Amino acid sequence: MKRIAIQGIEGSNHHIVAKKFYDKDITLNECLSFDILVDSLLTGHSDQAIMAIENTIAGSIIPNYALIDKNNLHISGEYYLPIHHHLMALPNQNIEEITEVCSHPMALLQCKEFFKNHQHIKLIEDVDTAEIAKRISEKQLTGVAAIAPKMAAEIFNLSIIEDEIQTIKQNATRFVIIQTTKPENGIHEINKASLKFELDHKRGSLATILNVMSDCKLNLTKIQSLPKIETPWKYAFFVDVTFETYKDYQKAKSIIEIMANDFKILGEYKNGRL
Amino acid sequence: MKRIAIQGIEGSNHHIVAKKFYDKDITLNECLSFDILVDSLLTGHSDQAIMAIENTIAGSIIPNYALIDKNNLHISGEYYLPIHHHLMALPNQNIEEITEVCSHPMALLQCKEFFKNHQHIKLIEDVDTAEIAKRISEKQLTGVAAIAPKMAAEIFNLSIIEDEIQTIKQNATRFVIIQTTKPENGIHEINKASLKFELDHKRGSLATILNVMSDCKLNLTKIQSLPKIETPWKYAFFVDVTFETYKDYQKAKSIIEIMANDFKILGEYKNGRL
Repeated sequence: MKRIAIQGIEGSNHHIVAKKFYDKDITLNECLSFDILVDSLLTGHSDQAIMAIENTIAGSIIPNYALIDKNNLHISGEYYLPIHHHLMALPNQNIEEITEVCSHPMALLQCKEFFKNHQHIKLIEDVDTAEIAKRISEKQLTGVAAIAPKMAAEIFNLSIIEDEIQTIKQNATRFVIIQTTKPENGIHEINKASLKFELDHKRGSLATILNVMSDCKLNLTKIQSLPKIETPWKYAFFVDVTFETYKDYQKAKSIIEIMANDFKILGEYKNGRL
Repeated sequence: MKRIAIQGIEGSNHHIVAKKFYDKDITLNECLSFDILVDSLLTGHSDQAIMAIENTIAGSIIPNYALIDKNNLHISGEYYLPIHHHLMALPNQNIEEITEVCSHPMALLQCKEFFKNHQHIKLIEDVDTAEIAKRISEKQLTGVAAIAPKMAAEIFNLSIIEDEIQTIKQNATRFVIIQTTKPENGIHEINKASLKFELDHKRGSLATILNVMSDCKLNLTKIQSLPKIETPWKYAFFVDVTFETYKDYQKAKSIIEIMANDFKILGEYKNGRL
């Protein structure tokens, strides 16, 4: 049985992705931080891990890119999950009785507008979404609510006070599947890649690389410059591309390899976009 | 006297930037979140605000880009501050006696390696760095330490237990000066601009824009694609450029205006890099 590390506990969005991504039964390793998640891979306790990497509202979770890069992990797949935030608490309480809401900072950020209309509620940042639901249930905390997926309410016997409290209703998060070894994806399954490269600070050097990609029929789905740790204000570029044929991608790859410094393939996988 | 909003309280890094950026005396408006900071500008309580926008380790503070964009604020200047994190507490305590460290999530992230060697300390996320220093001082809390700039220790009479605990010693943060009105920077003072545009998902469209920039002798110092709020998985591009002459920049600007959708100048200002 495959051992899969997730950030958070059962009932979290990472857990939902685990259920949707894997056909078969898996063993879940719950990790309370992304660092612990990566350690679980590095120490061989997990075969693969699921990691949130970007969301509709806040953009990339940049420290996670650094974790993948620094630890030479490989992206072997991706999954896009629509995010639904629900406010949940012990049964028979209404919103006026709730004085505290604990959740992950990202969930709080995504529900900001809702809480503007409920100023009596104190917002408290915590490490996970589902973990608070579990705590409320175990300690029978009244007056405290969690923001978590519906599955967390079911698992921990909480009632949903308000559903869909996220500001942007079409909110989605992109998750990547990561592992320590190079994935054995067949070239016919692959139509997306995550690349990293560094460039000299010569004018136009990025444009030149993008021209190569365009000539080789690669579609850029994402680009960002990121500071190079240890050498402040030097930038590396993280780029996601999709393509029709592996041959086109291979051609671009071999040209960029020559043109850019420190060219690295973070992953080649199947596009998870519906 | 100019009224300047800062994120955090006196003794914070934002306060240090305020002292360094402005020659003259200013009135400080302390704001406990970036939302409150922006509100302070929008309601006319502050003339300008100082906002952290990117740092060496974690990259861009993406929600702050969204705040500037959404509220049509203008960037009128920037400042690069080297960041020094110090661990501070009430006098006469050593590190073994400290059981809790509270600070801003970014500060905790930047000192992660230090705390790996002090596993007995519980890390607690809070809204500000200096604010914890103030609280320790006011409530005379023992066993609790703050991560904050040296100035906070001086203002709140705390002792520094360990200095320079940030993992990356050359850590720096870029701050922007923002305001509601278009700044009156003279064209001779301007050699940097922050731009935003949207592009059709046509292959090579970004490369084409970057070619224009390169042809007009603009240097790209930063690029990132950001999800368009309300239309998930459509991206806008945020780009910073520097240039030798305003004329070159103006030429690029007028071409990009025609080629890109929703072209917006977030700010034209003097490069703050030393």
